[in-house]
This record gives sequence, C-alpha cells and structure tokens, in this order.
Amino acid sequence: MTDNFRQVSDELVQVANKLHFRGWLMGTSGNLSAVITPDPLRLAITRSGVDKGELTHSDILLIDEDSRPVTGESGKPSDESSLHVAVVKTGSAGAVLHTHSIWSTTLSDLHYSEHGFAIEGFEMLKGLSGVKTHLHREWIPILENSQDMSELAQTVTQTLTSYPETHALVLHRHGLYTWGRDLKEATRHVEILEFLFEALVRTRMVNYGSSHNTFE
Amino acid sequence: MTDNFRQVSDELVQVANKLHFRGWLMGTSGNLSAVITPDPLRLAITRSGVDKGELTHSDILLIDEDSRPVTGESGKPSDESSLHVAVVKTGSAGAVLHTHSIWSTTLSDLHYSEHGFAIEGFEMLKGLSGVKTHLHREWIPILENSQDMSELAQTVTQTLTSYPETHALVLHRHGLYTWGRDLKEATRHVEILEFLFEALVRTRMVNYGSSHNTFE
Amino acid sequence: MTDNFRQVSDELVQVANKLHFRGWLMGTSGNLSAVITPDPLRLAITRSGVDKGELTHSDILLIDEDSRPVTGESGKPSDESSLHVAVVKTGSAGAVLHTHSIWSTTLSDLHYSEHGFAIEGFEMLKGLSGVKTHLHREWIPILENSQDMSELAQTVTQTLTSYPETHALVLHRHGLYTWGRDLKEATRHVEILEFLFEALVRTRMVNYGSSHNTFE
Amino acid sequence: MTDNFRQVSDELVQVANKLHFRGWLMGTSGNLSAVITPDPLRLAITRSGVDKGELTHSDILLIDEDSRPVTGESGKPSDESSLHVAVVKTGSAGAVLHTHSIWSTTLSDLHYSEHGFAIEGFEMLKGLSGVKTHLHREWIPILENSQDMSELAQTVTQTLTSYPETHALVLHRHGLYTWGRDLKEATRHVEILEFLFEALVRTRMVNYGSSHNTFE
Repeated sequence: MTDNFRQVSDELVQVANKLHFRGWLMGTSGNLSAVITPDPLRLAITRSGVDKGELTHSDILLIDEDSRPVTGESGKPSDESSLHVAVVKTGSAGAVLHTHSIWSTTLSDLHYSEHGFAIEGFEMLKGLSGVKTHLHREWIPILENSQDMSELAQTVTQTLTSYPETHALVLHRHGLYTWGRDLKEATRHVEILEFLFEALVRTRMVNYGSSHNTFE
Repeated sequence: MTDNFRQVSDELVQVANKLHFRGWLMGTSGNLSAVITPDPLRLAITRSGVDKGELTHSDILLIDEDSRPVTGESGKPSDESSLHVAVVKTGSAGAVLHTHSIWSTTLSDLHYSEHGFAIEGFEMLKGLSGVKTHLHREWIPILENSQDMSELAQTVTQTLTSYPETHALVLHRHGLYTWGRDLKEATRHVEILEFLFEALVRTRMVNYGSSHNTFE
Repeated sequence: MTDNFRQVSDELVQVANKLHFRGWLMGTSGNLSAVITPDPLRLAITRSGVDKGELTHSDILLIDEDSRPVTGESGKPSDESSLHVAVVKTGSAGAVLHTHSIWSTTLSDLHYSEHGFAIEGFEMLKGLSGVKTHLHREWIPILENSQDMSELAQTVTQTLTSYPETHALVLHRHGLYTWGRDLKEATRHVEILEFLFEALVRTRMVNYGSSHNTFE
Repeated sequence: MTDNFRQVSDELVQVANKLHFRGWLMGTSGNLSAVITPDPLRLAITRSGVDKGELTHSDILLIDEDSRPVTGESGKPSDESSLHVAVVKTGSAGAVLHTHSIWSTTLSDLHYSEHGFAIEGFEMLKGLSGVKTHLHREWIPILENSQDMSELAQTVTQTLTSYPETHALVLHRHGLYTWGRDLKEATRHVEILEFLFEALVRTRMVNYGSSHNTFE
C-alpha cells in the first residue's frame, strides 16, 4: 500500500497543478482524493487549507471511511472529506475532484430554483464516461450549500442514489464535484464539464444578444 | 519514411501542447494529423482518447487512406480519422487540425439555421493562406453533427467540393476543422480563426449593448 | 533582521510572479509589502515602477513608518507606500497586497454611488480569514481615488476604523487593497476576492440575460 | 552597432514571448521594432510571417529609413515596416509595438464613426509615459484600415502630427500601435492599454446590464 500511496500522491500533485493553472482551485479552495484500497476503505486526500498550486507529497493524507486520518498521519484532512467518502461509497468512484469555478457558480445560481440543469446536444458530452453520442442529456443536480458536512454528505448520497447515471454534482454558489474510475478519468470529467458550463453560459448570452438585435 | 514519421510526430506533439495550453483541446478532445506520404496515402494521426497536454511520440499512429492502422501499429486511431482523410483528399491538405473551443461552439449555434457564417473586414483574415486583404469575405460552413463517421466524411467531402476556397469547417456544437499545406500553416489557421471567432462574438455583444445605451 | 529581510524579499518576488501571471499586476502596476519588524516599523516594499513579472531581490526596499527608505537603501519606494503603512498600522496586518484587475475596476464603477458593495452567500468567502460560513456578508468599501497620497492614507485609516472587520478596500477605477497576517494569507485573500469579484459580475450578467429571455 | 543589434534582438525576442503568451500576437500577427541608430536611421524589426511565440534572433532584420533591408540582410521585413518608420520619425519613439487583440478590435468597431475614443478616470492611465493623474483624458485615434502601406504610413504621420500627445493608434478591425522611449516603455504601454481597453468594454457591458435590472 505504501508504494501505491506514494504513486497516487504524485498523481494528485500533478492533477492539482493542472487544475490550479486553469483557475479552478484558487485561494486554497477545492480538494482532491483517490482510493488507495476499497476494503477497508483508504482514501488519499489533500490536507485542509493548502495552496493547490504549491501542493507537495506531504500535503496528501490517508483517511478511513469515517474521514479520520489513519494512525501515524498528522494534519487535518479537508473539511469536505465526508463528501468525498460519500461519493466513493455511493458512486463506486476511484477518484473524486472538487473544484471551484466561475461558470459552475454562475450556473448554480441561474438554475437554483430548478434544482439542476441539463446539458444536451454538445459533442463534448462524449468525454463523460459511457456517453456515446452528443444527443445524450446530462442532468447536473444542484444541491443546497451547507456548513453541516454530515447533512451535506447525506444529501450527496441521496442525490447519487436518485440519479445513479449522473457524472457530477454542483453545490449552490460553491463548486463542482465530479469523479471517475481513476484520477485520469476524474480529471477528464473536470475539463469536459468546465468546457460545457462555459459553452452553456456563453451560448445563452450570445443568442440573447442576437435575438434582440434582430427584432429591433 | 521512418525519419519523416518521427519528425512529424515530434511536431504534432509540439502543436498539441500549444493548442492545449490555449484551452482548445480540453478533456482529450480534438485530434491532429499530418500527411507522411501522399501516394499511397499515409497519415500520422493522434491516438483516440489521449490527453493532448501530455501527448507523447507513442500516441501518434500511422493510418492509410481507409483510416486503418498500417501493419505493425497498435492502438486505436481517432474516431474521426475518416474526416481527416476526407479533408486531405478533397482539400489537398498536408495537415489537418480539429479543435474544440467555446467560441466556435457558440457561433455554430448562433448561425445554425443559416448553415454557416461570414467573416469580413478583419485584418486577421490575412493570416489565412492566400488571403491578401481584410476586405476578403470568408464563409465558414456549419455542418450538422453526427456520430455516423462515414456519413459525416461524405458531408465533409461534399462541402469542400461546393466551397473549394474555404479554409475551415465548423461542426454544430462540436468544433473546428481547419488545415494547411503543412502543420505550421494549419496551426496558424487555428490561431487566426479562433481569434476571429472571439472577435466576432464580442464585437456583436458590445455593439448590441451600446446601441441600447444610445437609444435609452 | 537581514536574514528575515532576505527571506521576505524572496517571498515577495514569488508572490509578484504568481499575481502577474494572472494579469493582476500588468504594466508595472500594483505593489506588495510585508512587515519585517513591527516596532520600530520596518516594511519591505516593492520599488516604484518595476515590472512585477521580472521582479528581483534588488527591487525590494526597506522603509520606516513614515514611508522613508531606511538609511543605506537606494531607489524610490512605491508612491503608495503610505497606504501600505496605514493598512499595517490600523489593520494590524503583516502583509499588504495592492493589485489592479478588470473585475475590481468594473465593480468599483458599478457600485460607486453606494460607496461599496456586499458579497454574500458564496462558499469562497470562507477563504477570508476568520469567516466560517458562506452566509457571511462581506462589505467591500469603495474609496474615491486621489493623487494626494497623504489624504488617501487618511481615508484608508478612517475606513478601516469604521469597518474593522473588512478584509479589503477597493479604490474607484484603481484597484484592490487586501492584507493578511502574513504574505501567504494576503495572497490567498487576493485570489479569493478576485474570484468573488468575477463571480459577482458574471452571475449578474447571466441572470439579467436570462430574465429577459424568460419574459419575451 | 553589432553589439547593440544583438542585445536589442534578444530583447525583442523576450518581449515577443511575453506578448504572445497574453494572446496579443496570435497566428504570426503583429510586429515589433526598436531603433538601433537614429541617424542614419537603423531599425531592428521582426521578419514577415514568423510565429511570435517561437521568435529567434535570426527573425530580426535591420532596415533603413525607407524600410529596406540593410545590405547583407536576407529575408523580407514586415509588410508594415513603413508604419514603424513613420511612428519613429514623427513620434521620436525608440521602440514601436504592433499587436492584435480582441478588445482593441472591438473598440475600433464600436467607436469607428467617431474616429477615436477617450479613456478617462482610470488609475492605470498613469502607466502611460508623462501621465501624472487618473484624471488625464487619453484620446485614442482610430484609423481606417488599408492594404496600401505608403498611404497608411502617411495617415499615421498626419495623425501623430495632429495628436502629438497621443500614446497609441488603433487601426480599424486590425490592431494597436503603441511606442515608447525604449522597448521597456513600449511594452509597458501595450500592457497598460490592453488593460484599459478591456476595462472600458467590460465596465460598459456591466453598467448597461445593471441599469436595465434597476428599471425593470
């Protein structure tokens, strides 16, 4: 397990650098995790409050299924560790990425009253695991934000149970949770979803401007 | 041919890095190709499903005019290989680049019912091969997106036959296809077209806002 | 003190590079400072008019509580040194960062007549020192811009006395002042606030576009 | 002169890299020059049609006051060399930078009928040489674009004679010309002006959106 943990930690550092470069982990926000062993569950996860652009191997902790650091580990795991555990357990994910971006924040506000939003008709949807056509309709649930992490973990579990096909969740005015079989797939999902979020907002804005131009 | 393939592969890796940095090949999207020999046609093309920001020499495959890997090659070529072959054959291109960007997606949606859009009056048009003045009018055809690649390849061939002067195609809510005599020219075309697409959308948005300001 | 000054100078160079990369210190704009000793006050601060993307150790000066270079130092400290000193004295900060960004400029104009604007309901607020919930309401005072630095320093002092809880100030059509216990915290505050500023403007724009779409 | 030319060439390569990174020299667009000797005039200028992100020392040519390569030089100087010479002669500049950006293109379109636009009230104006206060009003002339370079050079000369205080020109749907005492100052002017252009457009867009929200 030690070798695996070291390799996964290296990968987490690389992924954190990539996502921080794009501006999706600003100001120590966000957190990243990957399963080391499924049973008993051991999860490598980023330490609380570290700059994701300067992450090092020592900023990755090992936690168990109750989000407690495994003996020997020092430092505080991310506050949102229980959400990562909930996603791993309910969604059978091998890696979970939580990012903060402008476009996911914007969409979570715009579609707040509908509790989610659909993405449909874009080729980029095929970057989501198992999706074979741009005609796929992806429903992204929006969850009420909360500082009560055990309550929020329960909501995550319920939502993933209700929408077993979903590839992501958005917390209202908070950020994106997505996951994958492994870190590589989870990272691809972040890139795909962020692209789709921006495309969705910009297309809406331009179409609006255009329809006005036409009729005046 | 081996030497040439190695050199072209190196160039493809460099171009992929540049375009990925700009955000035009996110989440393993897009693909890049360059002609190794015209007759019999041998095309170097990116492997399916690889991260374009981490492309290596071994992610470049050699295919023939039927988009089949040449003997000895392992791995699956890009799903859209037949579109690259169609562009090479009909458009006499030496290199073909397919990218996914926000602005091409936006414009493909906005002008969908017109089956294309015109770009005119911008100095940057002179960056397109053979264009000598900003007064040039470039018509960018928009093609219906499809998962049937042989059908889509036929549509590409027909479109290039109808518009032999065009420098690019846009697939609806999918992305940009452009090409050139060689990889250098094709890369320049991506940069020029992406600039023009963004300029087109932003100019429209600002002019709209302004005309409203004026009359109220 | 020499050792500490050298270490702090290195940190200032690193922070300047990071913020310049994001486009928040363009064209030699902005300035950065950190306390070396509190009593007597000695502040390490960037030299006036240097490119923040090419900052070196020799571009950091040591000044006293009257913003005068300490004996032995050559070069002109930043014109806005007295504002840094005012923030350090009134706000008990260990580091002060002043950046110029598009979004802070935009918001300072939009909310100019209200003398400030509120940010509320965003998870990213928790990145501000001492904030425990997204329900926190952060009031960002907007100050009239001026070229009279002693007058402006007085206004900064008065504002920080009136709003002791605030994490930042915005000067009208000028830029952001934020600070922290140390350079690390101040840098985090810049990233957090810039994210929130952009999120605030974009959310407003999208909601506006949307409400129009709905009623037509 | 040889030593000076070599040093200036190195600086031009560095500046080109910086501006290309920001997206202001895409697709081989733009060109950069610096005076080597004022009398007889010798100007170091970028070769025509080179990728500014991959510029090397050998892409810098030496031209005379008639924009002709000095004996011994091979390669074609930039098509717009005569505009650089015109700016150097009329404006007493030591370096001239011509960039292509989205925001300068957008503003040139928006204010085309007024033949220019004013920037006023922004602190960033102080980054322009000789400007001491944000209350400064900078008038940016917009010139009709043309492919007749000698005609365009004449228009540049006339405009700089009419507006001797201006720091920049914008060619309609083409790009920015700015300059400075040396390359360092000219580069600062590019960064300052691009910031101001974006701030101008975004502020206008947001204020527009807001005024609508308020009255409906």
